[in-house]
Amino acid sequence: MTSVDLGPLLEVADRLATAAGAAARRHFRKPVVAEAKADSTPVSIADREAEAAMRAILLRERPMDGVFGEEEGASEGSSGLTWVLDPIDGTKAFLTGRPNFVVLVSLLDEDGTPLLGVIDQPIVQDRWIGAAGVGTTHNGAKVQTRSCANLSDAIFSSTMLPRDVARAAAFRRLGDACRYETWGGDGYMVGLQASGWIDVVLECGMQLYDFAPFAPIVEGAGGLVTDWNGTKLNRKSEGVALCVGDPRLHEPALRLLRG
Amino acid sequence: MTSVDLGPLLEVADRLATAAGAAARRHFRKPVVAEAKADSTPVSIADREAEAAMRAILLRERPMDGVFGEEEGASEGSSGLTWVLDPIDGTKAFLTGRPNFVVLVSLLDEDGTPLLGVIDQPIVQDRWIGAAGVGTTHNGAKVQTRSCANLSDAIFSSTMLPRDVARAAAFRRLGDACRYETWGGDGYMVGLQASGWIDVVLECGMQLYDFAPFAPIVEGAGGLVTDWNGTKLNRKSEGVALCVGDPRLHEPALRLLRG
Repeated sequence: MTSVDLGPLLEVADRLATAAGAAARRHFRKPVVAEAKADSTPVSIADREAEAAMRAILLRERPMDGVFGEEEGASEGSSGLTWVLDPIDGTKAFLTGRPNFVVLVSLLDEDGTPLLGVIDQPIVQDRWIGAAGVGTTHNGAKVQTRSCANLSDAIFSSTMLPRDVARAAAFRRLGDACRYETWGGDGYMVGLQASGWIDVVLECGMQLYDFAPFAPIVEGAGGLVTDWNGTKLNRKSEGVALCVGDPRLHEPALRLLRG
Repeated sequence: MTSVDLGPLLEVADRLATAAGAAARRHFRKPVVAEAKADSTPVSIADREAEAAMRAILLRERPMDGVFGEEEGASEGSSGLTWVLDPIDGTKAFLTGRPNFVVLVSLLDEDGTPLLGVIDQPIVQDRWIGAAGVGTTHNGAKVQTRSCANLSDAIFSSTMLPRDVARAAAFRRLGDACRYETWGGDGYMVGLQASGWIDVVLECGMQLYDFAPFAPIVEGAGGLVTDWNGTKLNRKSEGVALCVGDPRLHEPALRLLRG
């Protein structure tokens, strides 16, 4: 891993989130969105405008970096660094007028490891920025995950129960071992976990742009993030994540996922 | 049903929501809440303070009415009218720092039929007030449910998939017939439905204070609300609800629930 000065990059990431959030706000709860099909133009306008706003900043400030965005795909860079952009994570929440969707930004090093992450909810105005070794902030103030030694005290959260039977059974085993479950939320949950409100986040079926910010945000706040086998997430991960606020929950949670 | 002048009662309901929301905001994302168990003191403080604030207003302005609240139970009145209060619907959302919880207020007539409803999200500041025959407003502006003739175009929403196998199968039948599903949200979904962002809401396992505002809010905006047999909800309903924004979705949805 190349040594990178994260300070200026965190500032760029912050500006990316501001630009994307402004675009998302313009389309939130607007009639054109309500009339849209999930995969058709009006929704894409919100996503595309948010991503375009971020790409314009990167083109100006970081032309040497690669970019991988949900809407416009990948462009190569020369620096070895790649920005990963999800302009609206939680499209269904966005489309149903719920202030649960988030803007996700992350930056991968040349090995595909996430160096920093941003999770931004532009309606409520919650912004988490994190990097392992630097720390995680919420609206500028340092945050830490909550101490929670036992799954029986843990609050479990996930976007939804998967359709796949084996995966659903793994969700149930872990969820049932926790104090209680909450559903819905996409990347928003991970920011709330960094602030100490959720102990266990379990997700599957994600793309790189969905999960890339998880480790920098949660680990910068004292937690631990891996796939369901205990391996750190990187560009090649298969889109499953186990995020624990207190690292002591990691082994018992992994055991339950294995069944 | 006694003829009741709803105007002044809607104003009282509005003030109740303002008072409860202020109490909820004081405790939202505060450390004392994070340390609480779901059923112990600190959470109850938020719920209790919110309910107490509403009861103080009712005692002053509507001493002749009955009150049924989630926290303090029932007190009889002499007017035949009963206020039904859920100071924080979506306690798990509240406890995990999500701005999805809502304050619910409704008023039952002497037959136990809901006359009016309020759904208030005090962090985002979304307030729906509705009454059949009067209409439904969101932050003071009249709202209408969305036109949606076919389940295949409908957005389905529910707080969570129930554990009960037969009920879960009914959820899957209806959810699968819709365009897509979103999860999480409690009473908030019903307000968003009145504003035309969600077409089908399916819930079960509710108490009177959870579902009493549904019909006034959704039907005031042009929709239809019943239990899973097509019967209108009232004080004695068993806690299941099917809410459709477009009444044309009601029969096909009921058929799928029956299996």
